[in-house]
Amino acid sequence: MVKSIKEVMPHIAFGGDYNPEQWSEEVWLEDARLMQEAGVNLVSVAIFSWSVIEKKEGQFDFAWLDKILDILHSHGIGVALATATASPPAWLSSKYPEVLAVKPDGSRYQVGSRQHYSPNSKRFLESVRKLVTEMATRYQDHPAVKMWHINNEYACHLAECYSEESLQAFRKWLKDKYQTIDTLNRKWGTAFWSQRYNNWDEIHFPVNLPTFYNPSQMLDYKRFMDQAIFNLYKTEKEILREITPDIPVFTNFMYEFKPLDYFEWAKELDLVTWDSYPDPREGTPFRHAMHHDLMRSLKDGAPFYLMEQVTSHVNWRDINLTKKPGEMRLWSYSTVARGGDGVMYFQWRQGRAGAEKFHGAMVPHSSNPESRVYQEVKQLGNELKKLDRLVGAKTKAKVAIMFDWENWWAVELEGKPHNKLSYLDQVYQYYKVFYEKNIAVDFVKPDMSLDKYDLVIAPMLYMIKDGESAHIENYVKDGGTLVVSFFSGIADEQDHIHLGGYPAPLRNLLGLTVDEFAPMADDEVNEILTNGQRMKVNLWADIIKLEGAKPIAHFTQNWYKGKPAITSYRYGKGTSIYIGTNPADDYLTELFSGLLTQLKITAPFNTPPKVEVAERVTGEERFLFFLNHNDDPVTIKLEKGKMYTSCLTDEEISEEIVLEGKDVAILSC
Amino acid sequence: MVKSIKEVMPHIAFGGDYNPEQWSEEVWLEDARLMQEAGVNLVSVAIFSWSVIEKKEGQFDFAWLDKILDILHSHGIGVALATATASPPAWLSSKYPEVLAVKPDGSRYQVGSRQHYSPNSKRFLESVRKLVTEMATRYQDHPAVKMWHINNEYACHLAECYSEESLQAFRKWLKDKYQTIDTLNRKWGTAFWSQRYNNWDEIHFPVNLPTFYNPSQMLDYKRFMDQAIFNLYKTEKEILREITPDIPVFTNFMYEFKPLDYFEWAKELDLVTWDSYPDPREGTPFRHAMHHDLMRSLKDGAPFYLMEQVTSHVNWRDINLTKKPGEMRLWSYSTVARGGDGVMYFQWRQGRAGAEKFHGAMVPHSSNPESRVYQEVKQLGNELKKLDRLVGAKTKAKVAIMFDWENWWAVELEGKPHNKLSYLDQVYQYYKVFYEKNIAVDFVKPDMSLDKYDLVIAPMLYMIKDGESAHIENYVKDGGTLVVSFFSGIADEQDHIHLGGYPAPLRNLLGLTVDEFAPMADDEVNEILTNGQRMKVNLWADIIKLEGAKPIAHFTQNWYKGKPAITSYRYGKGTSIYIGTNPADDYLTELFSGLLTQLKITAPFNTPPKVEVAERVTGEERFLFFLNHNDDPVTIKLEKGKMYTSCLTDEEISEEIVLEGKDVAILSC
Amino acid sequence: MVKSIKEVMPHIAFGGDYNPEQWSEEVWLEDARLMQEAGVNLVSVAIFSWSVIEKKEGQFDFAWLDKILDILHSHGIGVALATATASPPAWLSSKYPEVLAVKPDGSRYQVGSRQHYSPNSKRFLESVRKLVTEMATRYQDHPAVKMWHINNEYACHLAECYSEESLQAFRKWLKDKYQTIDTLNRKWGTAFWSQRYNNWDEIHFPVNLPTFYNPSQMLDYKRFMDQAIFNLYKTEKEILREITPDIPVFTNFMYEFKPLDYFEWAKELDLVTWDSYPDPREGTPFRHAMHHDLMRSLKDGAPFYLMEQVTSHVNWRDINLTKKPGEMRLWSYSTVARGGDGVMYFQWRQGRAGAEKFHGAMVPHSSNPESRVYQEVKQLGNELKKLDRLVGAKTKAKVAIMFDWENWWAVELEGKPHNKLSYLDQVYQYYKVFYEKNIAVDFVKPDMSLDKYDLVIAPMLYMIKDGESAHIENYVKDGGTLVVSFFSGIADEQDHIHLGGYPAPLRNLLGLTVDEFAPMADDEVNEILTNGQRMKVNLWADIIKLEGAKPIAHFTQNWYKGKPAITSYRYGKGTSIYIGTNPADDYLTELFSGLLTQLKITAPFNTPPKVEVAERVTGEERFLFFLNHNDDPVTIKLEKGKMYTSCLTDEEISEEIVLEGKDVAILSC
Repeated sequence: MVKSIKEVMPHIAFGGDYNPEQWSEEVWLEDARLMQEAGVNLVSVAIFSWSVIEKKEGQFDFAWLDKILDILHSHGIGVALATATASPPAWLSSKYPEVLAVKPDGSRYQVGSRQHYSPNSKRFLESVRKLVTEMATRYQDHPAVKMWHINNEYACHLAECYSEESLQAFRKWLKDKYQTIDTLNRKWGTAFWSQRYNNWDEIHFPVNLPTFYNPSQMLDYKRFMDQAIFNLYKTEKEILREITPDIPVFTNFMYEFKPLDYFEWAKELDLVTWDSYPDPREGTPFRHAMHHDLMRSLKDGAPFYLMEQVTSHVNWRDINLTKKPGEMRLWSYSTVARGGDGVMYFQWRQGRAGAEKFHGAMVPHSSNPESRVYQEVKQLGNELKKLDRLVGAKTKAKVAIMFDWENWWAVELEGKPHNKLSYLDQVYQYYKVFYEKNIAVDFVKPDMSLDKYDLVIAPMLYMIKDGESAHIENYVKDGGTLVVSFFSGIADEQDHIHLGGYPAPLRNLLGLTVDEFAPMADDEVNEILTNGQRMKVNLWADIIKLEGAKPIAHFTQNWYKGKPAITSYRYGKGTSIYIGTNPADDYLTELFSGLLTQLKITAPFNTPPKVEVAERVTGEERFLFFLNHNDDPVTIKLEKGKMYTSCLTDEEISEEIVLEGKDVAILSC
Repeated sequence: MVKSIKEVMPHIAFGGDYNPEQWSEEVWLEDARLMQEAGVNLVSVAIFSWSVIEKKEGQFDFAWLDKILDILHSHGIGVALATATASPPAWLSSKYPEVLAVKPDGSRYQVGSRQHYSPNSKRFLESVRKLVTEMATRYQDHPAVKMWHINNEYACHLAECYSEESLQAFRKWLKDKYQTIDTLNRKWGTAFWSQRYNNWDEIHFPVNLPTFYNPSQMLDYKRFMDQAIFNLYKTEKEILREITPDIPVFTNFMYEFKPLDYFEWAKELDLVTWDSYPDPREGTPFRHAMHHDLMRSLKDGAPFYLMEQVTSHVNWRDINLTKKPGEMRLWSYSTVARGGDGVMYFQWRQGRAGAEKFHGAMVPHSSNPESRVYQEVKQLGNELKKLDRLVGAKTKAKVAIMFDWENWWAVELEGKPHNKLSYLDQVYQYYKVFYEKNIAVDFVKPDMSLDKYDLVIAPMLYMIKDGESAHIENYVKDGGTLVVSFFSGIADEQDHIHLGGYPAPLRNLLGLTVDEFAPMADDEVNEILTNGQRMKVNLWADIIKLEGAKPIAHFTQNWYKGKPAITSYRYGKGTSIYIGTNPADDYLTELFSGLLTQLKITAPFNTPPKVEVAERVTGEERFLFFLNHNDDPVTIKLEKGKMYTSCLTDEEISEEIVLEGKDVAILSC
Repeated sequence: MVKSIKEVMPHIAFGGDYNPEQWSEEVWLEDARLMQEAGVNLVSVAIFSWSVIEKKEGQFDFAWLDKILDILHSHGIGVALATATASPPAWLSSKYPEVLAVKPDGSRYQVGSRQHYSPNSKRFLESVRKLVTEMATRYQDHPAVKMWHINNEYACHLAECYSEESLQAFRKWLKDKYQTIDTLNRKWGTAFWSQRYNNWDEIHFPVNLPTFYNPSQMLDYKRFMDQAIFNLYKTEKEILREITPDIPVFTNFMYEFKPLDYFEWAKELDLVTWDSYPDPREGTPFRHAMHHDLMRSLKDGAPFYLMEQVTSHVNWRDINLTKKPGEMRLWSYSTVARGGDGVMYFQWRQGRAGAEKFHGAMVPHSSNPESRVYQEVKQLGNELKKLDRLVGAKTKAKVAIMFDWENWWAVELEGKPHNKLSYLDQVYQYYKVFYEKNIAVDFVKPDMSLDKYDLVIAPMLYMIKDGESAHIENYVKDGGTLVVSFFSGIADEQDHIHLGGYPAPLRNLLGLTVDEFAPMADDEVNEILTNGQRMKVNLWADIIKLEGAKPIAHFTQNWYKGKPAITSYRYGKGTSIYIGTNPADDYLTELFSGLLTQLKITAPFNTPPKVEVAERVTGEERFLFFLNHNDDPVTIKLEKGKMYTSCLTDEEISEEIVLEGKDVAILSC
């Protein structure tokens, strides 16, 4: 039986990627000593070590890795041991060119950076199996190994492959899915533009076309590639589970990452981990907060690890701003506040050579122990030691936002009424309202249970699959409150239109129909009138015909002025609200303020602007996080007469707490 | 003998593309019923039906099409039957990959959207011949079939092919044209950059070059591809003429479409038809009006059909604005006003699947008969029934603008003094003056007869071919008025410079020479002084030396201030005017107002701004069109004491007519 | 022994590229006559004549070229005879496709423009050898031939090739350089991202990668291609030297040209020549001045030729502004003022056909002798005849700017802290201060002798190679003044970090260390406070820790406010100044004004703004150049009581000189 994460790591994990193969042995002991000093308790090793472990086909050299693991263990540092499959060695693609991924034009990617393999290469999978089996066998009993880190940031550079082998795999996948070519023709709507297929071998990739692709085909290609890459992961996992059944496994996710359906992937991970690189230009990292909440939601609220962040600045943006003093610590605590039990970095020691040598690290190029960056790392690492009892604590949310990768893929396919809409931007817009009110939010797939939530929001849920509308109707019928925004409920899982009047699967629930769409030009704005107030809207207007719903706002301009823009409908014991346009933030804030009051959902505390508050609970204890994103101090009133303990300073606190600019407090009560 | 269009369709044609193969049979009867209700009298069928007609090579299934044609005929709806060749089936390219077009990098286009064939593939042409022969034979006597709709929007996505077979065809085309390689070397100026060829097989496409191409070669490549595609059309036409000698044939043109020389194509069409999709952002669609006038001019003023427009919004722009209530009707009448005898749509029923499912249609996704879109369609279809006696009426213009596809190709080749000039923008600029004055304009090729016209304008006629300058000189000598704008008369048909001082072939006629060109930077403006007024000019200044011409405006700034910008010259019995810069609209309006007064060319009526007026005449009757593009009502004074009949309302009208916003009147007198 | 340039051309060279093969014979004599009239004494012939010289493989036709050379010689016009290798003929690539360069996607460039050959093709090199041998043999004794013009603008369109033959050559080059694969692995840092190679055949080009390349590999690829192209040049040179040991040879360089390390190339040229096409939009062409100074510096101050400029406007920009009256003359004298002994044009007669027919020339399309362009050419050509005694005169500079092509390559590789920095812009910024003060500046490579200079500036010298830091330290130790700007001294010649605290190789010399970099966002500015003044800085801030240096300016904003931005340090007998940010021009002007005063470096004269002053000296004479870039006249005070001779007017001048707008004076004293 696989051990729990808390079992193998009963602390807030702190550390980073460690690449000792880039350094000579004399550096290794110094590294271990510095890690101890900095409070490091976990490092990821061997992520990019394939070529130094298996130097030639079948010739494995583990001596150096044995030594590293022994040194780390003797210094009390745990290891998330990588399977080393992230970047295949030159000898592999040199001997077997078929492992290389292929571009739409037919040319092959080459060795020289990383991740150049085709996810559909059987030869590659074979080599992966061999390497992982060797790794697992070698280190199954090494006491330093706490977890397995499978591969690295799957698909981050290469989520598509157009090789002949991939084409055969795509055809096989389609055949497995649709069984008969007639079914495929129907499901792809090939009567359009004379695209009918007689057999599977006539099917090609949806690229190299003179004009628009078949959207059903493109959607299936995205599903196929997601599953092909998922299959790589599952293959590794199976081997590891077989040889080391008690060691937890994971891979590290990314943020705003469209190609992989992480809800599905998370089912096969023992721990959700992700890599976060918000641009400091953003100021208050509310997007970063949303990703935390999403990652926490992937496995039903289980704590996750932030597997990579940077201490200072990255090197892959056009201009790489550096985090100001205190920001790295502050943002790290945002991770913990929103459900993270691990705060890790890429990477331990800043590289001397290669493409990422200007990417910040825990130990900078100078190795100077007085450098600002290292000092901040050391402070944080030692502080986090005080939070052992927080490990495993949960977040309780009464609000959920629907989020669906397949909807993301579908709604951003070409050929829509408005082709500059961004699904993420729509989700951000709704999330932001709650972030700024310090109301906890979970994310749910449309088919997941909604019972826990008093309020559910479905921003631009274009794709509604079989069964989902009944599921959502039941939620409202039983008393839930649902908010649906424009361009929802339009297409089925094949990206075919739900006929019968938009949004057909939600018409009953919403009490209306949308007669037509009126997208707005880039610089176009309209206004809605609601409760005597006029507020800006843009991007889109639905021309709504009411079928029971009541208008709560009307358009004031253009030919549809006076027509309803936003409606409310009492359905069963619940309420459904439809937002047939894109309102500015002020309207959404007002709308949801009212709803939250009605539903009696409140934030833990009232705080000044840009103070992030979050709560985690264990069976015994309640932890309150206060993060001051301002440069200046703020004062927060606490619950009258109640006594709190500051987890970081061990002080007793009551009445109020004063937080310096960029400072953090964690109060227990 | 082929029947006339009026013979086969004695009404204003109304209908659209009809793709029943995308729907089950139960929908077909409903479609026919709705078509009747909406006043549809013509539909285009089978445009994208190859793969359901010829399901496998040589196996034809006409049963469904028989049934459709019978249903339509029994409901009194005529058919423009397509030859179904627009999108070849998957089995064809799967079996014969050589039918696929090839990109410059050598990779092949693939099946999965449409129009992926190489125009130079003999194998493709062979399959086309077979299909068209079967279609024509099958339906030669079907009473529903009024016309043949050949292929669809030739070259709209794919006007170039770089296959080996295309290369052989290009070499053969060159050999046929130039006979000897020495001639080609001379005509292409291959002494430049050591490009001399010893034989035809050394010649390649003008792509994959390290730097600028040979412009003569590129121009020939454009000619070659135009003719290769034209050959596809002519091959189909010949078969149809052979089997059905009395049925008219056409293909549907596009707007602003550079690759095909429609003046040449029109000679082989029995009816000019075109597809129009103006962006509603534009407001008043004057470009759309210009295309109408161009299309009418292609066959010497014969009425044309608008073969495709959209009821509401398209789906292939970044943001697809929808036509406001009334606009679709208004713009449809612009078609009729400017010489159109057909108002058709893409498409009848909005698709459920595929790349165009969000493209508007006559029957929307909801099938709701109360939907705004269907209501407007039905109103228009039934109104148009009142205009039978208009069919075949002509437009009489005294003004012509020279327009030449080969000039378009040449003047926009790279390596010019100013490489951001747009030929169409230059033409628009001159056209717009007349559009706003409601003066009818024809378009003519430089070698066409100019006898009918009192005023001819040649905007940026960079290329003057052998014989054309004499032809143009004669026009002025005999009393015509000619206006020529900058960068005209520079190159011959090989894009070689006419030596001897710009613009050599027009110097005599214009009474001047241009010593040099002074292009202006993006944000640069200059001014001209004319009759004491100062007016803005930009883009370009010619440094003019007068050789008889009189200056009518001078530049006021930069080193050439005081030098002539615009000149006038009495030549023979006529006048030639040269515009050596790019004046703002106000100057052109003033210049042409004066010329029109002198030449006694007047608009049918004086109207408020944004009211479009046009006139069509038959032997018996004069039809006056008034189109109010404003949102508010306008009043138009009619000829004192004259009685008019409103064709749409059958009312008798005199003195004045009041038009609501977006409304239309057609008066007969 | 090769003759000196002065020996073969004792005048200021004046003329241009001459392509008689594009014209019929009757034009040739007219050309020679006009050349005489215009003062032409040198033309470049046969640059693009391969296909008319060697019409088929091994069949040479020199008859036409014999005739041309005879005509030119009989008119007293010298010839820089090209080796004709710039654009290979169609028969060559047709017969031997392996001579064609290859793109990253594997497709081949094609014949049809120019320079389509692979620099690594042995077959191409073989054909070059044959042609050059024939040319040299044929014309070794022709009296018109003054110099050899090898090829043309090497690599201007094609500085990269990805053919299989190039790959083999790259691998061989690497093997020759590194000897063992272990050394390569170390020097490329292949432990990063598992990039370790077992043997040379596993290495590929740094393209077609899923993400960032290995910077050490990319740097070597740039070196390899530079050297491969250099090898083409040297091969030609060797043949010419062998057959015509006394005739000087050169190739023509370009401006702002990154791919070729011209410092290295210049060692193999008997004369530095370059092609200059400043955009007239720039106004005062200070960049053009900097290129002149750089070109003069390439061969230790030897006079260079401006081999190509345009009389009026080019045709390859988007919009090609024309030089105003007087500008062509003025800018030509800037060439002479800064050390040029030749003023040449592309080209003599404006082409009638081909890609460059709208590129200005000495004789325009009209052939009109009254045209402005020809008139200005004639005036200049005849004026320059008065400057024979200037030929060979030198420029004396006390200030040098370090410039290094390898640094250029390295600092602009991807993955830096700030990826929008331009090396040239940094250099321009420092150069401009001296240009505006009319202080002469040389350019030096970091490893060249600095003894002549009182002040040396190293802008963004990111790469410091072995030995260079000691060399630079010695310069300061011995009394020199050195200014170093931010992001200098960071990497070694492999683009590996110099560990030990930035900028490790310069820390001793500068008396400080940089703890971290803080790049600024696009719109971000900061301020420095210096001597009570506040001045803007942007782009970058170094976080400096002083180790002996004294701060002379501090930042005033952001989290590092109060920290030093600019420092000064007394080192040995000299001074080192560090600029840890990007100051606006005003600060640099103030800083260097102070330094120049301290170092007693003065301009020849104080002049009004936009008057360029420069000085050249021979053993006997001092020449002062005054160039008025203003449109209005200026007055310049001369040295009290001193007598000058105007070289262009032969007048005696004292006290002051008045220069008309765009006018030039050359005074001798």
